[in-house]
Formats: sequence, C-alpha cells, structure tokens
Amino acid sequence: MPPPARSYLTGLIGSGIGPSLSPALHEREADRHGLRLLYRTLDLAAPTGPGGVRGAEAAPELLQAARAVGFDGLNITHPCKQSLIDHLDELSPEAAELGAVNTVVFRKGRAVGHNTDVTGFTQSFARGLPGAPLGHVVQLGAGGAGAAVSHALFGMGADRLTLADKDPARTEWLTADLNHRFGHGRAIAADLAALPEALARADGLVHATPVGMAAHPGLPLPAELLHGGLWVAEVVYRPLNTELLRQARRLGCRTLDGGGMAAFQAADAFRLFTGLEPHTDRMLEDLARLVADPEPMRYGRETGA
Amino acid sequence: MPPPARSYLTGLIGSGIGPSLSPALHEREADRHGLRLLYRTLDLAAPTGPGGVRGAEAAPELLQAARAVGFDGLNITHPCKQSLIDHLDELSPEAAELGAVNTVVFRKGRAVGHNTDVTGFTQSFARGLPGAPLGHVVQLGAGGAGAAVSHALFGMGADRLTLADKDPARTEWLTADLNHRFGHGRAIAADLAALPEALARADGLVHATPVGMAAHPGLPLPAELLHGGLWVAEVVYRPLNTELLRQARRLGCRTLDGGGMAAFQAADAFRLFTGLEPHTDRMLEDLARLVADPEPMRYGRETGA
Repeated sequence: MPPPARSYLTGLIGSGIGPSLSPALHEREADRHGLRLLYRTLDLAAPTGPGGVRGAEAAPELLQAARAVGFDGLNITHPCKQSLIDHLDELSPEAAELGAVNTVVFRKGRAVGHNTDVTGFTQSFARGLPGAPLGHVVQLGAGGAGAAVSHALFGMGADRLTLADKDPARTEWLTADLNHRFGHGRAIAADLAALPEALARADGLVHATPVGMAAHPGLPLPAELLHGGLWVAEVVYRPLNTELLRQARRLGCRTLDGGGMAAFQAADAFRLFTGLEPHTDRMLEDLARLVADPEPMRYGRETGA
Repeated sequence: MPPPARSYLTGLIGSGIGPSLSPALHEREADRHGLRLLYRTLDLAAPTGPGGVRGAEAAPELLQAARAVGFDGLNITHPCKQSLIDHLDELSPEAAELGAVNTVVFRKGRAVGHNTDVTGFTQSFARGLPGAPLGHVVQLGAGGAGAAVSHALFGMGADRLTLADKDPARTEWLTADLNHRFGHGRAIAADLAALPEALARADGLVHATPVGMAAHPGLPLPAELLHGGLWVAEVVYRPLNTELLRQARRLGCRTLDGGGMAAFQAADAFRLFTGLEPHTDRMLEDLARLVADPEPMRYGRETGA
C-alpha cells in the first residue's frame, strides 16, 4: 500500500468572500492533477457568534492561525492586500513593487507574499489582446485592482497611462506612485471631465471599477466616449459579458473580458501553492462555466468556512 | 456545473504523531464516500524554528487556531486528552465520565469533546471476542489507554477488574476512579507480585501498556502466568501480532489484537466529523495493511503538517 500522497491546505482571507469562485477553481484544478487539496474561505465578515463578526482587524490573527495549523498557502483579498504585508517574512519583487499581496506561501517556516493579480492581468492581456498598442492607455479605477493592472500595463511596455477614478485622492496617489516607479510624466491623473479628450486620442481603455457587476449595473462612462479605435479591457468578470464590453463590441473594438485575469491569477497562485504547472486553459473554461452558473456562488456560505 | 460539495478539514493534535495512521485511515475512508477531506497532523513535537518545538503547552492555542480557520473537527492524543477539556464547550457522556477526550467536533461555533477510544474498544471486543466472559478481568496498564479500556469493560458488564501498572500511583488513581464510578470493590489495585494469583482465577487479560511495540519489544508479564483458560485482548497494534498474542495463541487462548480498537476509534471519529456511516470493515482492512507496510509511517513527517 503506497504512502498517502502529500496533501495541500489552502484558502482565502478577505471580507464577504462567501461567493468566491476560488475554492472551485483551485479544487477542480487539483482534481485534474490527482492532488488532495482543500481551499477554504476564511471570511472576515462571517459571524463568529450572536451578532458578532470577526472584522478586518482579525486578519493578522487568522493569517497566524492558518500558518500554525499547517496551511500551505493563502490568497488574500479586500481589505487585507496591503495591511497583511507587515505580517509576512518576505515579498516577491512584484508584490514589493506594488505594495500589495494577493498570495502568501508558507514554506520552511517563512511566509512569502506574492501578487498574481499583476501576473494574471499580464498573461490574460497577452493571450486575449496580442499585439494591442500600448502607446497611450486610459484606465478607469485607481483602487486595488486598478493599481495591479496599471503596474502590469507599465510592465508590458505601456508608454503613457491616463488615470481616472471617482475619488480624486486615489487617482493622485496611484499616479504619484506610478510616476515614482516608472518615470515621471508617464502616468497622468485626469478628472472625469478630461476623459473625452484623453479617450479620443487613446489606444485602449482598461476598466477597473466595480461598475458592470450585478450589484452595480450600467456603464462606467458615457457611451459616446467609446469609439472603434480603442481596444477595451475589462476587470469585472461577473458577468463576463458586461455592458461596457457589449457596447465596445458593437463599435468593433477588440475586447478582453475579466475572466482571464481571474483565471490566470488563480492559476499562478495554484502554481505557487503546489509547485505544479496548472492547466490554464481548463481553468479559464471552469471560470466561464462557474460565472454562467449561479449555484457555486453559494459555496463559501455552505461550507461555513 | 454543480456546486462544489462540502469539504472536510480534520486533524490530530498530539506530540510525536508523525507516524500516525489516522491521516491514511480517515482520508481513504473519505475517498470511498467521494468526500473531499483533509486530515492533518498538528504535531506539538514538530520543530517551529531553529532548535525549537511547540511543546505541549501550545495545545490550547493550536486548538483555537484550528477552530478559527474552520476545522470541522480534531482528534486529540497524548499528552492532551485531559488537558484540553477545559478549552471545550461541551462533553459527550463518555468523555465526561472518563475525563478524557480524543475527538473534538466544531459545530455552530461550539467545540464538543467525545471519546471514541471507549466506544472503539467496546466495538472491537464485541466483534472479536463475542460472548467472552467478563466476570473477572485482569488489566495491565493504567495510563490513558488503560483508563479508556477499563471504562469500556465496565460499560460492557464486567463484574470485577484487577488493575496493575508499574507505576503504583497510577494504579491507585484509576482504581479509585473506577470504584467511584462503577461501585466500590469492583476494581482492585494489584502489584505485580499479586498477578499470578489474580490471573490463575481470571476470565481474561487486557494489555494496555506499550510493551510489545517495536520500540518496547518483549512480553509485559512472565510467560508462565498465561494459561489456556484466559481470553487475551491487546491494545498495542504496531505490530498487530505482538509477542503476547503469539504466546497466548500457542496456549489456545481466544485473542483480540489492537487493530480493532484503533480502526473503530477512527471510524467513530469519522462518523462524528462527517455525519456519515463509515465502512468499518474496510477501515479494519486498511489498518491491517498500513501496519504491515512501514511506508505510511513516514506520512506525517512528509507532509510536515
């Protein structure tokens, strides 16, 4: 009787992550490799007792608990991608540069932070919009996803980036950070009034706000600002086919949905957790099926993890 | 695409548990049910850093960490079966009576302690020595396993129990406890010099010391004290075929090896963790195969959990 194979214990720390697709993505990929792997949601917004929830301040404690009981790794999401950095032993270059972590690997007593949002967007873009011009890109959204995507864009060779967010302070902060890292003048903070002019001359548009998700339906910008000379990349992946992408396709734009970034970031995390090469095409297919079927959204709540 | 099935996260807290067969027993049984289940060893003797180990005093913290990250349940073994009781919310009747817990189930925010050593020995005895007389039983060993077995014997209807242990204080303590619970005079503390007379008149012998294990080879008592009028039940299960059982069989005794208790305690814990009825015959077969094959002994160390 052969010895049991090594098993993998992984999960996700964040707030309101019951509907996360990560458990399904990781566990199905593990099944394809014949690995015994569990992916648990550790929800900071889950009730801990009558009327109480853990709250975001419990994240460091939860990270420490996961480490103590032998988790192999964790994904990290809102609101902890920056706040948990101080509790890690080491950062990958991407995570250090971005100042945000979405993946932690526990190995030989050390907790090492990575960022697969950056690598995930990069791979999705290379696959879905190969050869798309990167001279001047307009990006809507300067939050966590926006920061990852803008770093990825400069990493892919973007020349200039015009940033806009409904929160001007966020726009200013990210612009300053990008100029500091990638060269002054390459990122430009724009208010929404400046969008028409910027988009008229841009090569592409990246959308990194929650608008277009089921809870925030609609378009993130006036439809008349879109034109056929733009490529359009979306970060939202629920639904895959957002109103923005529909409008852009109607105008003949090349488009990229948000599913690729979501699947590639999971694939990169899977590789970090297990050391195995993920079947990225199968993970992309799984993601599309999971998004199309509302059932798995209940996963996290059902397990109560 | 159907939603991912509920998964199970379980494990074992104890010291020096690297060679435990529990991960293999539980995970193989889960596989037969098609369950995604992980069983991890949380070893108090595992190194935590250069030159350091957690130590037994870390057990409450580890229990709390496992609870916080969503473990469904834990087995508990030496040296924590009694010390962790104060950290639980509730005890089963068997665990409360024995004052020792080997299984904890986390459910609806509560930690409930059980003892499947008692129920495991009871089932193994009923299966392997049906109808064996219980008028007067001699038991060697008054430690943790001995306490569970003696409670099980009285629970099955044993009339009188003669107890002996190389540590007289342990013998006295368990004897007093048993007499308090089951009626005065029913348990008798004996020193080793009194064994010949006790065994000459006994119906059966239960052995609950480590003698006969690979690390403690040999016989736990002089061979000439055995006789064909005894049944002989063994708690040691590595190896299954101990020197004591070999001698007893040579004399024509009915015998019971320690594998049944080990497999049934695991089966009962599996039922508590999952709510599913275990395939106990298959778990008994697995245990026999695992004991025969030294490879899985490395399991815990390999996973490093």
